[in-house]
Amino acid sequence: MYRTHNCGELNISHVGQQVTLCGWVQRGRDLGGLTFVDLRDRYGITQLLFNMETDDSLCQSARKLGREFVVQATGIVSERSSKNPKMATGDIEISVSKLEILNPSAVPPFTIEDDTDGGDDLRMKYRYLDLRRAPVMNSIMLRHRMAQVVRSYMDSNGFIEIETPVLIKSTPEGARDFVVPSRMNPGEFYALPQSPQTFKQLLMVSGFDKYFQIVKCFRDEDLRADRQPEFTQIDCEMSFVQREDILNMFEGLARHLFKAVLSIDIPTLDRISYADAMKYYGNDKPDLRFDMKLCELNDTVKGKGFKVFDDAELIVAINVTGQSEYTRKQLDELTEWVKRPQIGMSGLIYAKHNTDGTIKSSVDKFFNADELARWSTACDSKPGDLILVLAGNESRTRKAMSELRLEMGERLGLRDKNVFKCAWVLDFPLLEKDEESGRWHAMHHPFTSALPDDVHLLDTDPGKVRANAYDMVINGVEVGGGSIRIHNKDIQKKMFSLLGFSDEEAQKQFGFLMNAFEFGAPPHGGIAFGFDRLCSLFGGSESIRDYIAFPKNNAGRDVMIDSPSSISDEQLKELAIKVVN
Amino acid sequence: MYRTHNCGELNISHVGQQVTLCGWVQRGRDLGGLTFVDLRDRYGITQLLFNMETDDSLCQSARKLGREFVVQATGIVSERSSKNPKMATGDIEISVSKLEILNPSAVPPFTIEDDTDGGDDLRMKYRYLDLRRAPVMNSIMLRHRMAQVVRSYMDSNGFIEIETPVLIKSTPEGARDFVVPSRMNPGEFYALPQSPQTFKQLLMVSGFDKYFQIVKCFRDEDLRADRQPEFTQIDCEMSFVQREDILNMFEGLARHLFKAVLSIDIPTLDRISYADAMKYYGNDKPDLRFDMKLCELNDTVKGKGFKVFDDAELIVAINVTGQSEYTRKQLDELTEWVKRPQIGMSGLIYAKHNTDGTIKSSVDKFFNADELARWSTACDSKPGDLILVLAGNESRTRKAMSELRLEMGERLGLRDKNVFKCAWVLDFPLLEKDEESGRWHAMHHPFTSALPDDVHLLDTDPGKVRANAYDMVINGVEVGGGSIRIHNKDIQKKMFSLLGFSDEEAQKQFGFLMNAFEFGAPPHGGIAFGFDRLCSLFGGSESIRDYIAFPKNNAGRDVMIDSPSSISDEQLKELAIKVVN
Repeated sequence: MYRTHNCGELNISHVGQQVTLCGWVQRGRDLGGLTFVDLRDRYGITQLLFNMETDDSLCQSARKLGREFVVQATGIVSERSSKNPKMATGDIEISVSKLEILNPSAVPPFTIEDDTDGGDDLRMKYRYLDLRRAPVMNSIMLRHRMAQVVRSYMDSNGFIEIETPVLIKSTPEGARDFVVPSRMNPGEFYALPQSPQTFKQLLMVSGFDKYFQIVKCFRDEDLRADRQPEFTQIDCEMSFVQREDILNMFEGLARHLFKAVLSIDIPTLDRISYADAMKYYGNDKPDLRFDMKLCELNDTVKGKGFKVFDDAELIVAINVTGQSEYTRKQLDELTEWVKRPQIGMSGLIYAKHNTDGTIKSSVDKFFNADELARWSTACDSKPGDLILVLAGNESRTRKAMSELRLEMGERLGLRDKNVFKCAWVLDFPLLEKDEESGRWHAMHHPFTSALPDDVHLLDTDPGKVRANAYDMVINGVEVGGGSIRIHNKDIQKKMFSLLGFSDEEAQKQFGFLMNAFEFGAPPHGGIAFGFDRLCSLFGGSESIRDYIAFPKNNAGRDVMIDSPSSISDEQLKELAIKVVN
Repeated sequence: MYRTHNCGELNISHVGQQVTLCGWVQRGRDLGGLTFVDLRDRYGITQLLFNMETDDSLCQSARKLGREFVVQATGIVSERSSKNPKMATGDIEISVSKLEILNPSAVPPFTIEDDTDGGDDLRMKYRYLDLRRAPVMNSIMLRHRMAQVVRSYMDSNGFIEIETPVLIKSTPEGARDFVVPSRMNPGEFYALPQSPQTFKQLLMVSGFDKYFQIVKCFRDEDLRADRQPEFTQIDCEMSFVQREDILNMFEGLARHLFKAVLSIDIPTLDRISYADAMKYYGNDKPDLRFDMKLCELNDTVKGKGFKVFDDAELIVAINVTGQSEYTRKQLDELTEWVKRPQIGMSGLIYAKHNTDGTIKSSVDKFFNADELARWSTACDSKPGDLILVLAGNESRTRKAMSELRLEMGERLGLRDKNVFKCAWVLDFPLLEKDEESGRWHAMHHPFTSALPDDVHLLDTDPGKVRANAYDMVINGVEVGGGSIRIHNKDIQKKMFSLLGFSDEEAQKQFGFLMNAFEFGAPPHGGIAFGFDRLCSLFGGSESIRDYIAFPKNNAGRDVMIDSPSSISDEQLKELAIKVVN
């Protein structure tokens, strides 16, 4: 035993005890004849006291300790003369009688403090040091806590955690697979799973009834800031269920997580159809922490000679409550904001509903007071409000207004990261048409069933068929999604055929699943949650990287271990592959 | 909701209730005007009753149900006239009033019963059907239970579960890596981890203090019956610990697992040195369920003119209690057994210690009664015992005697799979010499530290240095192993140099770890358990495959999904690789 206690647990009740602590030197302070050293470990910080009068040479050794030295200190717990109420151990200090340096440290390349002076690249390279900083360490510990809470909920609800294989088969559908050359089967490759979808369905065919797994998945995609080539899912599947059963079970999971991890009671989840989400929020993962719904103005504003409106497929507004005092400068800046390439609009129109009841718009030339009053009615504006209007191509304009709504919510402080609004988005379209190829694509994946009411449309009007699918959305982030699956071989074949698979292709890639459906597949459905994203949401962070112990950068590299890297010619030869330049 | 109850929960207290069950048709029986159908799900089997008098057409439908059809049945819970005390639901049956076929089934390729008529290959191909059989399903559920119990023990002891990356860096040390070509970094490869060893050590450098993970690992080895290319470890690491701390913590884990999963109280673990294990049991993972220790007879039997003994490096015996009545036929058969290539001995010598006190050996020509009495003393035989002797090259003979001991234990029923004997094996050699190359190899791995008492021998006599390492052995199976690690850069460098690494190679492959040691690495150590093996041991099975939902065969193939498989030219091109024939 190197220690009797950790650096977070000693308090006034321990005064007088001899203890031994281990940890890292956070900082030292010399005050006349006294030297104070803050000793840090995962559990907290405890102040060590060295007294020149009591032990000259020991105090000299303490003064030589550098930051991040690993030390072992033995001494008596004493009450502090000046207490620190901000620290759990702030009432006491250790009057050290014995000090041992277990390992010295070079000067770290950045400061190990809550706020550090290290840049992103440096912190990635020395990730093991960045992980020492309390905010990063706490993020990883939050993730642990969430995983345990998820498992205990699932276990207590009768779900069996089953590990599905990592070395599986490449299926070109969807995103790119990572592949693994097989030495024992030259010229052949395994693929790493993008999700355990087909395996969990097979487990339902096997009769496991309720399955879950917290599992690594892999996608060889070009990376954005918040994507990682390897990511973690909470993957779940149930048999003999309808949509309502799944929604209840996983609403329960969300409620349990918020309560157990954040001590928050969340209300019953709102349910909103895909159509309404698009109509009122301009996207299928609405941030419901604030209202500011989109209002379509096509019927209200067209035909008044204003070409921008008259030529537009969609004219859409939001009413920003209480912001009629927005200055010209602010509005100009907002106009520039919507013109950015990421938003892509050519301009912004506004109408200030002044506190005196008058309405002043940026297009007064075309709209008189009566007409502006109709805008106000359409948008339900009140004196003091600001109406913002975008017009243009339907899909781009809706998307832009969704962004503008979020931006205004952000500016007005309506998106508090400590407030959580959870909802189910339902009734997605089953298929979407790729405009270029004219082919149908599965909006979720090809195993999703149609809503029972819409099955009859599959042959006649596939674009109208709604999926028996659901997404869980929290604060504008899609944290999970799933569906009731197809469990009938013929319907699954029809789906593949709708998606442009030949029978042969379908059989080659997914024959094992369709064959399994012939041997008594139960009705089943499931859901998968993005665990990295869920953790970052609970932790109040934008970035999932903070919640991954060893993340990769945007080029898919782990700069700490310098991977990927070249491999030896011998390895290549054994694997029967060659690198092509 | 497809059902109100599952097929395992109804009993006499539910009589009179209307219920709806779902499940698979296990079998049907027609008895005059009655039809019985056993309905199966994960939870159990419930008998459905159809009465020709009550509902003719319903009963006819029931008679048409095939095996493994998925059905939904509604009816009243009734008390059975002839009860089945062997079934949890044996007191009741369901008088069915409504029956729906949710999915029919083709005739399964083998019977879905506890004992099946399906061969290995067929059952692997239709693994999703094999998983329906109770023994296989129960094995997977045991695994789930064990994983949850492990996690709750680790969590309650302050361990943080942290996911380490799957896409890491290839290090040619040890077994072969599976590699993954990187599309974004052409010509470069990730490797799949053989273990998270270096990452868990970095987590200790980060200050996580206690880490664990139940994690998939990968080894591209030629497969034996009980090896899989992907396997699962319980991986653990702790800081500021000595060997004793680790032994206590994980002895606690073993005790907790046996109690929580099998309701068995295991005694304090025996501890045995590597040297004693080799001496008394002939191998480093002794089966301690029975005694039958090896006795070396070199001093007792040499120099009597028997060339086999006189030329042998080692003459070693076991005393088989109470087996002096072994027949000539049995002894001949045993002789053939030791001559098999897997054992590789040229013969077996025996001495029967008869119940009348006389000793009769197979080499009476060379050894008189007095001399045989000395054999008896050396082996501590009693009247009625049988002494078996092997002689020859030291290492092969010791290994053969270890096998013979296990074989005799097996034949005498001393290896009851419901009895568990757990032990720690300690004080392994740190290094072993490869006889061919003359190079030192790390017996565990290059991160293992030497026992403090032996450190001084590293420079002078490295072969004598004992490792600060430990294996947990249960019933002759090594279920886990670990060590106190090196945490000092200079010692780690020295270790790599002893192992024949140039400084440059060591830096290229493990530089990130050695650099991390410069920034305040705490003393640390850990252990990893083979989770598949541990599950099979708890389940009383020889094979780990039963405890893996979707295992691969000995050629590394998943014959169910037909993987590995070829990939498209487009994929190869994107990955900048080419298959070489």
